Amino acid sequence: MRHLLGIDGLSRTDLEAILDRAERHLPRGDAPASLRGKLVANMFFEDSTRTRSSFEAAAKSLGAEVLNWTAKGSSVSKGETLLDTVRNIEAMGPVAIVMRHASSGAPHLVSRHVRCAVINAGDGTHEHPSQALLDAFTLRKHWGSLAGRTVLIVGDVLHSRVARSNALCLKTLGAQVVFCGPPTLLPAYPEVLGARCTTKLDEVLPEADAVMCLRLQLERQGDSLIPSAREYARLFGLTPARAERMKQGALVLHPGPMNRGVEISPAVADGPRSVILEQVRNGVAVRQAILEVCT
Amino acid sequence: MRHLLGIDGLSRTDLEAILDRAERHLPRGDAPASLRGKLVANMFFEDSTRTRSSFEAAAKSLGAEVLNWTAKGSSVSKGETLLDTVRNIEAMGPVAIVMRHASSGAPHLVSRHVRCAVINAGDGTHEHPSQALLDAFTLRKHWGSLAGRTVLIVGDVLHSRVARSNALCLKTLGAQVVFCGPPTLLPAYPEVLGARCTTKLDEVLPEADAVMCLRLQLERQGDSLIPSAREYARLFGLTPARAERMKQGALVLHPGPMNRGVEISPAVADGPRSVILEQVRNGVAVRQAILEVCT
Amino acid sequence: MRHLLGIDGLSRTDLEAILDRAERHLPRGDAPASLRGKLVANMFFEDSTRTRSSFEAAAKSLGAEVLNWTAKGSSVSKGETLLDTVRNIEAMGPVAIVMRHASSGAPHLVSRHVRCAVINAGDGTHEHPSQALLDAFTLRKHWGSLAGRTVLIVGDVLHSRVARSNALCLKTLGAQVVFCGPPTLLPAYPEVLGARCTTKLDEVLPEADAVMCLRLQLERQGDSLIPSAREYARLFGLTPARAERMKQGALVLHPGPMNRGVEISPAVADGPRSVILEQVRNGVAVRQAILEVCT
Repeated sequence: MRHLLGIDGLSRTDLEAILDRAERHLPRGDAPASLRGKLVANMFFEDSTRTRSSFEAAAKSLGAEVLNWTAKGSSVSKGETLLDTVRNIEAMGPVAIVMRHASSGAPHLVSRHVRCAVINAGDGTHEHPSQALLDAFTLRKHWGSLAGRTVLIVGDVLHSRVARSNALCLKTLGAQVVFCGPPTLLPAYPEVLGARCTTKLDEVLPEADAVMCLRLQLERQGDSLIPSAREYARLFGLTPARAERMKQGALVLHPGPMNRGVEISPAVADGPRSVILEQVRNGVAVRQAILEVCT
Repeated sequence: MRHLLGIDGLSRTDLEAILDRAERHLPRGDAPASLRGKLVANMFFEDSTRTRSSFEAAAKSLGAEVLNWTAKGSSVSKGETLLDTVRNIEAMGPVAIVMRHASSGAPHLVSRHVRCAVINAGDGTHEHPSQALLDAFTLRKHWGSLAGRTVLIVGDVLHSRVARSNALCLKTLGAQVVFCGPPTLLPAYPEVLGARCTTKLDEVLPEADAVMCLRLQLERQGDSLIPSAREYARLFGLTPARAERMKQGALVLHPGPMNRGVEISPAVADGPRSVILEQVRNGVAVRQAILEVCT
Repeated sequence: MRHLLGIDGLSRTDLEAILDRAERHLPRGDAPASLRGKLVANMFFEDSTRTRSSFEAAAKSLGAEVLNWTAKGSSVSKGETLLDTVRNIEAMGPVAIVMRHASSGAPHLVSRHVRCAVINAGDGTHEHPSQALLDAFTLRKHWGSLAGRTVLIVGDVLHSRVARSNALCLKTLGAQVVFCGPPTLLPAYPEVLGARCTTKLDEVLPEADAVMCLRLQLERQGDSLIPSAREYARLFGLTPARAERMKQGALVLHPGPMNRGVEISPAVADGPRSVILEQVRNGVAVRQAILEVCT
């Protein structure tokens, strides 16, 4: 694989190759230093500490040096174009550029103009492939296989790159995906992503083998897409009462950061179904695997 | 030692174990790479460059990789709880979290919810144990032992985590501690910290084997706790005239950053009694020792 | 060499020693780890990501650890003096401080008060020696020698540390330097820098073996030194029509970040004469050489 721009277009074999490789990185500490002496550039045009830190920990575990470029105080504010900025960093010799950008498609554009690997760490409302891979990895650890499983993704699916990448990834790995949320936050054509939509959480909850709660962008409260955080929590929040109605052994995921008490109750986030911290832990191993297959 | 949350509760043996170990790290450059391949996370919820840099230099000297997490642009601004933020970073696999926080007690709370070591790099007005240890280390280098020595801490003792940790540390190591400052900036019960208070700098100065000038928070000028920086300097500033009345060989310390001309005169800061840069130099060795004993 | 404060005062032998050493670092990846276990401190009092990243990549390629100090959130905002700030970082044990500062001469002042090497990464409108060295390196790669060549530097020469350092460096290496720009942006005494001035770009263009376009500080538009970016582009922008009138094989340089369409047209920036990305690539090798000769 030359780049990881999205889940779209990747085959089951591609995805499983990354997941299998990530398995080997799980017992942290004895990484093989496969990137010793190499440079990895983190180019986050949008703020992020958790994804950036995870890629940084992954790269350093493989022996790479990490260049942390941030948009703040950079030549971007002096009007430099995206391609000039990226080609500049590329000229310093990284084997991979890990990139987050507010514009959907920015990493794809960049990938056509550089020779090093481009890894999409989130582009606009488009894709967030490393998140989808770590989620799939986490589920596979518990289930062995995703085939025949049903994963319910709840919340602002319409604006979520996490939901898009997850739907594509889970579908390709054999799972059914159901989107659930208020009608204003659901995509009009979920079948494009291989999913179906519902607005009735309580109906669909007992079918799910896993529920992924999306973060509610609280700043959307004012823009008429949701009535209020309180109403959202009442209708779509994963409360202990709802968690009890889930299948035995069904899992709860959240990509973080959580609004405790909004999309997920503290008792569920910290409860026995929750694999939220496992997601973060697995994220480093999955990103090690991604860095390896792309370089 | 599992964590270093404060000096409070540590025995003389505990403290001396760290100081003895720090001795071995003083000739920089031949560190034993005892943390090779390990990850140390710097989590500074409050701005700091000198303490953060010192811990970073210490960790890197031991061969560790350092993850520099900052509150700015992080999920903290998205309403994530302290514990969720820290557990997220912990899930990435650090052996230690070095943490600064504006709330007294934050590292203690965190330490009860993570498995890795928590090192307090300053919490509110509570403790700053690595600073106290490097100050004790610096004094011990000069004196051999702190037993029977008198250390005068001058300034805004009331709000100073440096003063608190130092008082506890110096006392445990056998020194006498005297706090000196305007009555509004002295603690009501200094005996809790094993110290006594005075407002008369000129009376107590000739007794001291060392004087530690605390930084005057200039922003306090408006809040009626001090009249003005100029009056403060006149009453409590360590001027050359005052330095001359100190014991032969008595030392001057300052935790930095200095307000030259306020709590300390330039001629004293740069004069023969000053060990201010030694404090910084020793700080790296002491933090190496702290990282080693906690991991 | 103990420090690299500027090109001023360096002999041809000094400069060539750095350029020759940089040659050895060009095939990236097999650097000799000559700074293994050493600490390099980046102290950027002014924002910069490209020069900082280049020095960081260079230092890490040599096996050094890098401490990235930034003015933001540092003790500088608490009124600490420049010398106290720098001596503090020096006390942590770096072998070199790479420093950028808005005040001309700041690195020179610092160099008289520290024992480690000081490398000027840009001081005010004074010098930017590593940029000049990488530019000379890039030209030498193409030409073998700079002797007898003519380099045209176009733009706001008056305020440009890049132009100053380049003029001194190119002259010492045997090239002729011509400054070109609006009269308000040209130095009154170019002969001090061994250069001559002209305001007529089209006249002088056919003589040049290389043209270096300087970035137009767009914020100067308001201050009556230039009429407008559009007029500047018409009179001094390197357009395809102008590029065609250059000598066969003549080169185009730009220190970045570019204002495409102002001082340089996109077709020229990306055209066959452009060595702009080579400059960046060579920059890492040149900075490796600088770090080595100063430590």
